[in-house]
Amino acid sequence: MGKDILQPPRGIRDIVGEEAEALEYLMDSFREIARLHGFKPIIPPTIEYSKLFEAKSGEEIRKTMYVFTDKGGRVVALRPEVTASVVRIYLRKLRGEAKPLRLYYIAQCFRYEEPQHARYREFWQAGLEIIGEKDINGDLSVAFTASYYLDHVGVKHYYVVGNVAFHRMFLSHVGLNNEDQDHVLHLIDKDMVDDALKYIAERVGENGAEVYERLINTPLDKLVDLMNEYSGFLGNDLAWFRDELDKTMLFIDSLRELGYEAYYEPKLARGLAYYSGLIYEYKALESGVRVSIGGGGRYDNLTTIYGGSPEYSTGLALGLDRVALTLAGGEFSKKRGEVLIISLTRIPLKYPYTILKMLVDNDIPAWIYRTDSIGKGLSLANKKNIDKAIILGEKEYSENKATFKDLIKGEQYTVSLNELIDVLKKH
Amino acid sequence: MGKDILQPPRGIRDIVGEEAEALEYLMDSFREIARLHGFKPIIPPTIEYSKLFEAKSGEEIRKTMYVFTDKGGRVVALRPEVTASVVRIYLRKLRGEAKPLRLYYIAQCFRYEEPQHARYREFWQAGLEIIGEKDINGDLSVAFTASYYLDHVGVKHYYVVGNVAFHRMFLSHVGLNNEDQDHVLHLIDKDMVDDALKYIAERVGENGAEVYERLINTPLDKLVDLMNEYSGFLGNDLAWFRDELDKTMLFIDSLRELGYEAYYEPKLARGLAYYSGLIYEYKALESGVRVSIGGGGRYDNLTTIYGGSPEYSTGLALGLDRVALTLAGGEFSKKRGEVLIISLTRIPLKYPYTILKMLVDNDIPAWIYRTDSIGKGLSLANKKNIDKAIILGEKEYSENKATFKDLIKGEQYTVSLNELIDVLKKH
Repeated sequence: MGKDILQPPRGIRDIVGEEAEALEYLMDSFREIARLHGFKPIIPPTIEYSKLFEAKSGEEIRKTMYVFTDKGGRVVALRPEVTASVVRIYLRKLRGEAKPLRLYYIAQCFRYEEPQHARYREFWQAGLEIIGEKDINGDLSVAFTASYYLDHVGVKHYYVVGNVAFHRMFLSHVGLNNEDQDHVLHLIDKDMVDDALKYIAERVGENGAEVYERLINTPLDKLVDLMNEYSGFLGNDLAWFRDELDKTMLFIDSLRELGYEAYYEPKLARGLAYYSGLIYEYKALESGVRVSIGGGGRYDNLTTIYGGSPEYSTGLALGLDRVALTLAGGEFSKKRGEVLIISLTRIPLKYPYTILKMLVDNDIPAWIYRTDSIGKGLSLANKKNIDKAIILGEKEYSENKATFKDLIKGEQYTVSLNELIDVLKKH
Repeated sequence: MGKDILQPPRGIRDIVGEEAEALEYLMDSFREIARLHGFKPIIPPTIEYSKLFEAKSGEEIRKTMYVFTDKGGRVVALRPEVTASVVRIYLRKLRGEAKPLRLYYIAQCFRYEEPQHARYREFWQAGLEIIGEKDINGDLSVAFTASYYLDHVGVKHYYVVGNVAFHRMFLSHVGLNNEDQDHVLHLIDKDMVDDALKYIAERVGENGAEVYERLINTPLDKLVDLMNEYSGFLGNDLAWFRDELDKTMLFIDSLRELGYEAYYEPKLARGLAYYSGLIYEYKALESGVRVSIGGGGRYDNLTTIYGGSPEYSTGLALGLDRVALTLAGGEFSKKRGEVLIISLTRIPLKYPYTILKMLVDNDIPAWIYRTDSIGKGLSLANKKNIDKAIILGEKEYSENKATFKDLIKGEQYTVSLNELIDVLKKH
């Protein structure tokens, strides 16, 4: 077998060392904060029937899915995102629960994209979903929980907010069908505004493209004027437009009152075709450059795609690999004061293990190195950046004692076992 | 789309509710205990080149792997187990670190097997690996950490111990090549002892089968006699046999001294072809029936299969789905006293969110329900089994107060915001 056997497949990472510690810290903290905010875990499968995602996850995702046929002839996919699974599982197992349902997950997702900086073919998503809450409080609740989490791990961030309903209403009234709307939103999401306008013009004429161009260039404080100007054009949808506008403003105002920056971006679209209203992205600074670290929005009635009754839903996902890059170095690693127990080979194994148990029972991280030379043990502690050692030689064993050594100060004390924990806690 | 869209692929689960809470609890505790015992995280990829596992994971695993060709023409597999990845990553990224390396992981694995009770095609493994430690302390360290973890989560367990080196030595001296040895061990692991003996007889004659039959029927306290009887047969390997025998006895004795039951089982083989010496399984009782919840062993020199230098290694994995079944119901769910904040729609959103922040900052789990009727909120709390509510109506808002309601006792108090946390902590 050649050297290439040591590589993971292209675009896929081996995560070790500080990178692994950072990611574990981000995952642990996410679970803790999600539970603190009343979310319950859901663990969806990694493999799903590929048609689950083909239904409504959007063009971008369909193109980059890992799809294959299993040994039983099923066409399956590695999940490219998690919301479709959550909705499916809700319909299958949770429909009878009292609403709103508050769910969180952490899951790897897979997309066969060209690898680039901080974009991997296997990546980690941490998500929150609320099913069965119509009120804007649902959106604010997931958003605030995510902000609380980002604050907790020390990631400064702000919001960019948009609303897919505005786009759909305008595109629908200029005469575009749903599929064409999906494609326009896909182009807008890819920042291909000219292509989107050209596509509309080709389908329904220049006038339609101009109307849509107005919408995607109107700032929030001018949207009321636009709405009034287009009240005839919007017809029966006018009340709906007004309602979405109120929600968008309330969402932004509430975030600001909670101390977060939030801006309206009329061109925000997001890459998932199932969004139905309010959408937003989290931006943070990575080495001075603003990057998107996640986002979310309303996806009311996604349930109907899978044959269920209509249901209100809202949720978000953070890209933990992206979040990790915005962590200032070292913040996550609470140094835990690990102790190396250096035990001479000649003494019975039971002795160091009895002492190990005392330490870990007292929440002091420790492990045993069994060696024929104390020197080798001290040298290992040094290489591993471990500051504290317990030395167990024949003398210690015969006297039922242990020698504690502070490797920074160079001090050492031989004490009886019932004094040991006190000595360790003092150092 | 039909109703079948709601099903996950056969043999794969949707994990929700108490099942999800139990699994999350088992995962969180595993990480915590592994770190406490000085293990560091490693996050290996879910997708690997399939040849990584074909090399040495064993017949059973090769037959049941999820293998497919990705869009780039690579033949890849969903990991059926994790140790092969850990060894690969060690060779690629960690070779230069001070040894021993202590690594832990939690990872889903995939095997296309016939679904049966507690056996799924996607399942969760929690593992510990030590690389670069020859001493039996390495084996004892991973085993003790796993036992400490199982004790912590309340799973009574005992050990069944064996040694692959005994099998390999005997099979090699009767004239079986490595591949044939792998197949014999595969049959023994499947409890197909007669087939294994027949296979040996066919390859090297009845005499070889009889010699091996002696080995797999000899209890630990008679192994020295067997060794002496076969000293000529073992030849140069006699010292190695003696050494493995000493280690096996020391491992079992040490576990017993630490308070765990451990038994020698001469027919223990384990399904992975890379084991080289001491092996063991964890057994626990599920509804009165003893089941295997994990296992491990020595896999010295697996590094050489991937072109690396020889290295001492030992490790284990627990099947968390199996461990979950042995948890007595409810033990894991520390009731956390969630608070429902019922906020009338008419008062500004900022008010309930300010109060939510006070609560979660004090580690009190809480979430907001915004409604036009307090009654609806109380009814929701009841359905969700939430015992404490904070009610925020117009009166509370205008007076900068909150009403705390203990839903069990029926008591309620309207207090100022700076008294609220104290009141909550008392109830």
